[in-house]
Amino acid sequence: MKKINLKEKFTKFSDQWSPKIIEEMNDYQFKLVKVENEFIWHMHEDTDETFFVIEGTIGIEFEDETIELDAGEMIVIPKGKKHKPFSKKEAKIMLVEPRSVKNTGNIENELTAPNDDWV
Amino acid sequence: MKKINLKEKFTKFSDQWSPKIIEEMNDYQFKLVKVENEFIWHMHEDTDETFFVIEGTIGIEFEDETIELDAGEMIVIPKGKKHKPFSKKEAKIMLVEPRSVKNTGNIENELTAPNDDWV
Repeated sequence: MKKINLKEKFTKFSDQWSPKIIEEMNDYQFKLVKVENEFIWHMHEDTDETFFVIEGTIGIEFEDETIELDAGEMIVIPKGKKHKPFSKKEAKIMLVEPRSVKNTGNIENELTAPNDDWV
Repeated sequence: MKKINLKEKFTKFSDQWSPKIIEEMNDYQFKLVKVENEFIWHMHEDTDETFFVIEGTIGIEFEDETIELDAGEMIVIPKGKKHKPFSKKEAKIMLVEPRSVKNTGNIENELTAPNDDWV
């Protein structure tokens, strides 16, 4: 049995927009990500995705609205819903989603990160 | 689309050891719980269970060790693993687990809470 300290895990990497797995629960994973500036429009066709803000503030643009989240706030993005995360200053977030989800969803480009990096 | 502020949700109930659902992701749920003193030994036969400490400190007793978790720390308890959570002072935690999980797992007693209370 091991507990996980999120702050300590965040000290172990510095790259942005590249999720790091910290734990698994059944076939779901908890991932930490550092984010800054704009990501790309994308969606996940087969699954909902949870964003949980640990430190800082992020925004998520949807086609019809933009939602801002501060530390201690979360949102579940339904599958198939197009979204574009962004953050003016570096923010630290936790994702919860099934194993094997790709960060850029239905898009493959230079921002597509490995989906099996543990930290 | 709605975001969820955990602190605000915690103001909406005061009973202890009685998980309140705040959101769903696919067939998983996020639940908030206030805990104090000792819970009971139990296990969940069919699923792992995630404890995430939002405020305060909790302990989880296992048959062979006890693990203490502070705010910002999490642990995934494997399915079938007997555990007994406790907390000397009231602490606030978030659970992540599949829909329909009962708080007392394989035990049914006066601490068994509804598993469909939303807040």
